[in-house]
Amino acid sequence: MGKGKSPRRIVTAVLRLAAAAAAAVAAVVMATSHQTIVLFGMEVQANFRYTPSLVFFVAGNAAVSVCTMVLLLVPAAAPSLAARLVLMVDVVLGVVLVAAAASAGAISDLGKNGNSHAGWMPICEQVPAFCDRAKAALIAGFVAVLLYSLLLMNSILFPSVSMGI
Amino acid sequence: MGKGKSPRRIVTAVLRLAAAAAAAVAAVVMATSHQTIVLFGMEVQANFRYTPSLVFFVAGNAAVSVCTMVLLLVPAAAPSLAARLVLMVDVVLGVVLVAAAASAGAISDLGKNGNSHAGWMPICEQVPAFCDRAKAALIAGFVAVLLYSLLLMNSILFPSVSMGI
Repeated sequence: MGKGKSPRRIVTAVLRLAAAAAAAVAAVVMATSHQTIVLFGMEVQANFRYTPSLVFFVAGNAAVSVCTMVLLLVPAAAPSLAARLVLMVDVVLGVVLVAAAASAGAISDLGKNGNSHAGWMPICEQVPAFCDRAKAALIAGFVAVLLYSLLLMNSILFPSVSMGI
Repeated sequence: MGKGKSPRRIVTAVLRLAAAAAAAVAAVVMATSHQTIVLFGMEVQANFRYTPSLVFFVAGNAAVSVCTMVLLLVPAAAPSLAARLVLMVDVVLGVVLVAAAASAGAISDLGKNGNSHAGWMPICEQVPAFCDRAKAALIAGFVAVLLYSLLLMNSILFPSVSMGI
């Protein structure tokens, strides 16, 4: 039965599912963040599509969410080559999550605070609804990063029990 | 003597040294990127210090450069807990490199192309020398990411020979 292994396998599966859910929420919330305002008589629309970093955030989180669910189905009992490959893919997925959160975070900081030296004004006062959704998406993205970190830590520190399910 | 192990140990050490060097170059080049121009009779200075993402890029690359050199001195023959801890620290360092490159990349794209929807104008035509140095630093940063990826791949796929030196 391997009674000692079951709880840890469950921990891995739960971490993976939770990370997938957080990444999916991040992607969906960011993808649905837009706001149209009227400024000086002109209609101005704020939309994630207009900023490459936010598009990458949506695509990256969506892709990781799907890929990590697929990994749930891979039979990879450690120690084996399959288990090491799963770990390697997990590192890549974690890196994509971090890159997505970092680039979207950099742009969001600019949206909130601007950069007077570069002449870039903050825009969040004009489009608060857009910024609030983007902020919620970023929080979900960072939660996904945190959960993925725990997953990786688990796989690396307890290699004999934690990979696959 | 372990003749079979020596070449791989050397590969690991070389990858680590090369990654440390690339990260150090990235930090130094970005840290020395500044340009002063006169615009409409006013002196305007472009400096990495004015942008949080670029400060993080410098700090992150410098920290990783130092930390990975320290790891060279850790005796961590796999399989052992020490080797797994070294791998975990390496994953964290790799993540810092990626986050630094991603956030600085997002801001650099803005500097080059601007974002007309947000009213953020490109600035690289005004401060080309600053942008050229930032671009060189970014390239070094991405080289460091690439080398660290190879290092991690090596550690994960060949765990019994590749960690520590």
